Amino acid sequence: MKRLQGTPRIDGFRMPGEFEQHKGTYMIWPERPDNWRLGAKPAQRVFAEVATAISEFEPITVCVSADQFANARQMLPAEVRVVEMSSNDAWVRDCGPSFVTNGKELRGIDWRFNAWGGLVDGLYFPWDKDDAVAQKICELEDADSYRTGGFVLEGGSIHTDGDGTAVVTEECLLSEGRNPHFSKEQIEDMLCNYLNVEKVIWLRRGIYLDETNGHVDNIFCFARPGEALLAWCEDESDPQYEISAENLKILENETDARGRKIKVHKLVLPTPVLITEEESGGVDAIEGTLPRNVGDRLAASYVNFYLVNGGVIFPMFGDKNDERARKTLEKVFPDRRVVGIYAREILLGGGNIHCITQQVPSGGR
Amino acid sequence: MKRLQGTPRIDGFRMPGEFEQHKGTYMIWPERPDNWRLGAKPAQRVFAEVATAISEFEPITVCVSADQFANARQMLPAEVRVVEMSSNDAWVRDCGPSFVTNGKELRGIDWRFNAWGGLVDGLYFPWDKDDAVAQKICELEDADSYRTGGFVLEGGSIHTDGDGTAVVTEECLLSEGRNPHFSKEQIEDMLCNYLNVEKVIWLRRGIYLDETNGHVDNIFCFARPGEALLAWCEDESDPQYEISAENLKILENETDARGRKIKVHKLVLPTPVLITEEESGGVDAIEGTLPRNVGDRLAASYVNFYLVNGGVIFPMFGDKNDERARKTLEKVFPDRRVVGIYAREILLGGGNIHCITQQVPSGGR
Repeated sequence: MKRLQGTPRIDGFRMPGEFEQHKGTYMIWPERPDNWRLGAKPAQRVFAEVATAISEFEPITVCVSADQFANARQMLPAEVRVVEMSSNDAWVRDCGPSFVTNGKELRGIDWRFNAWGGLVDGLYFPWDKDDAVAQKICELEDADSYRTGGFVLEGGSIHTDGDGTAVVTEECLLSEGRNPHFSKEQIEDMLCNYLNVEKVIWLRRGIYLDETNGHVDNIFCFARPGEALLAWCEDESDPQYEISAENLKILENETDARGRKIKVHKLVLPTPVLITEEESGGVDAIEGTLPRNVGDRLAASYVNFYLVNGGVIFPMFGDKNDERARKTLEKVFPDRRVVGIYAREILLGGGNIHCITQQVPSGGR
Repeated sequence: MKRLQGTPRIDGFRMPGEFEQHKGTYMIWPERPDNWRLGAKPAQRVFAEVATAISEFEPITVCVSADQFANARQMLPAEVRVVEMSSNDAWVRDCGPSFVTNGKELRGIDWRFNAWGGLVDGLYFPWDKDDAVAQKICELEDADSYRTGGFVLEGGSIHTDGDGTAVVTEECLLSEGRNPHFSKEQIEDMLCNYLNVEKVIWLRRGIYLDETNGHVDNIFCFARPGEALLAWCEDESDPQYEISAENLKILENETDARGRKIKVHKLVLPTPVLITEEESGGVDAIEGTLPRNVGDRLAASYVNFYLVNGGVIFPMFGDKNDERARKTLEKVFPDRRVVGIYAREILLGGGNIHCITQQVPSGGR
């Protein structure tokens, strides 16, 4: 497949909203023992649950290293397509391509990936295999790709409404470890040219202590053009309260690219989730990888759900708010089946269901 | 994708002839320096030529290890799809799946692979990655597969006419390193059940000194039902003369599954090709891999061509008979464009163009 010159904007391609029809989904199989406890076996079981849930809605491909291929093939149902692919970890939302379409053809944006901050505050080293994932998925999809060699971005740091608007956080996109040579305006230009949007809404910060430098996909998500969900904290003494309130204010004072006010649904957060001694003890200590220390607070959020054709797959934490979150999602997505998966194991690795999935849009509008 | 019980015969699937319409082709990128001289760089250039030639006739996917991915992607034209896959070497004809179809659905036969003879007279050790290739290609094609866990076979050791007949050699299929516990009748039963043929024609031996124990695909090939090519030696003092003559006699005294006499075209062989000192010197010496010694005679044969949609891609050796071979192919395949590729580098690795390609039939008849 080709590496394309130019930009999606010039070529008339746009990034659809996640809520639009999918051709399918990609995931990556987790295995590194310095991030996933107990040799990643508990995480693999939950990843398999997520893949199985997705397979009930749309085609799903799981990318697996040569060493784990046979094990993954056995743990996943036959409906799941399993393909060999090396990676440094399992976050296809961030290292995978962002697909764009002109309604007929599919193309990928292959953003430069540097493990959420490179040598400044990246989460592991090296990240070369992750950085090759987007191109490999594009090859599998027979899709030509745009490579932004000089511009670092992760798919989880952007959300689009498919209708001219992108939402990001300053905490992430202006972080020192990504594109320090770019001004805010230059970054906005890149987003407009590659996602083919006319407007970028800048939230301030993401979820408290989110190791991705506050990815937008853990705190905010479009349900459809003009309507969105925001992770919401009810405890005024919690540092998260101010973060969510500040973002709400920004959204209330904004309009989208089409001049609409955005209707914001508050999606309650779970009670703070801390790493237990047993959980921390199951992780290999390796120089250069973010440690998982006892008592560390994890960036748990129900907003880290994934929209599939006809469904919503959302993380549960065994928390009193799990069912409140489900009700909100059922209200906001009345036409989708809402599926909850107990996802603490994914959270322990640093993200959640949205972070481990990447949609391939169907191409048609 | 599923592992299927039963057999293609029971399920109504047959293996089409290679001359029938293809959906596309698979190849594997060469790299092991104990088989391919000079770090496989000269071979990679010729493999790229073959892939490029195929891409002018039908879709082609090249499977490449993680380490070689970027290099292969750069050396291959954009029309070629490149996917990551580990392997022990580059012979997809032999370790890849044999596809069968019922006219609507495609399925793969995943024969057990043991590197042409396992611990008896196999050509390298280990071969575990090769043995996983067929399933991985089936996953890529969304094809369920039959695994013959207790039966060893390589795709290059069989040819079918798509119409009830298979042709094999005794030298290979009855060799000690493959299925010593099976009688000739049991092996014939396996072929009938998996390829869904009614008749197996047993040639005696393959090309002289062929390290695959005389694969049929180096000496014989169906052009269409009832018509075939046989590698032919004109030098009565050459050991190959008797081998070819013996096979011709067998064919002349046989009919195919439909009762037809088989019209056999003689395809002349090139002058014997010997390994030069320079060629031998470029190969790493590694315990357990067949060495490439100076003066060894290679199993050069024009019959090791590959049929693509509307074309024939055949190996040339810089030999006086190259043009004679082309003329024969043009006569036997008047509706196909005949493309010759100088393929000595492939031959140095132990096979030729047919050995490094595997067709995916289109599924329809």
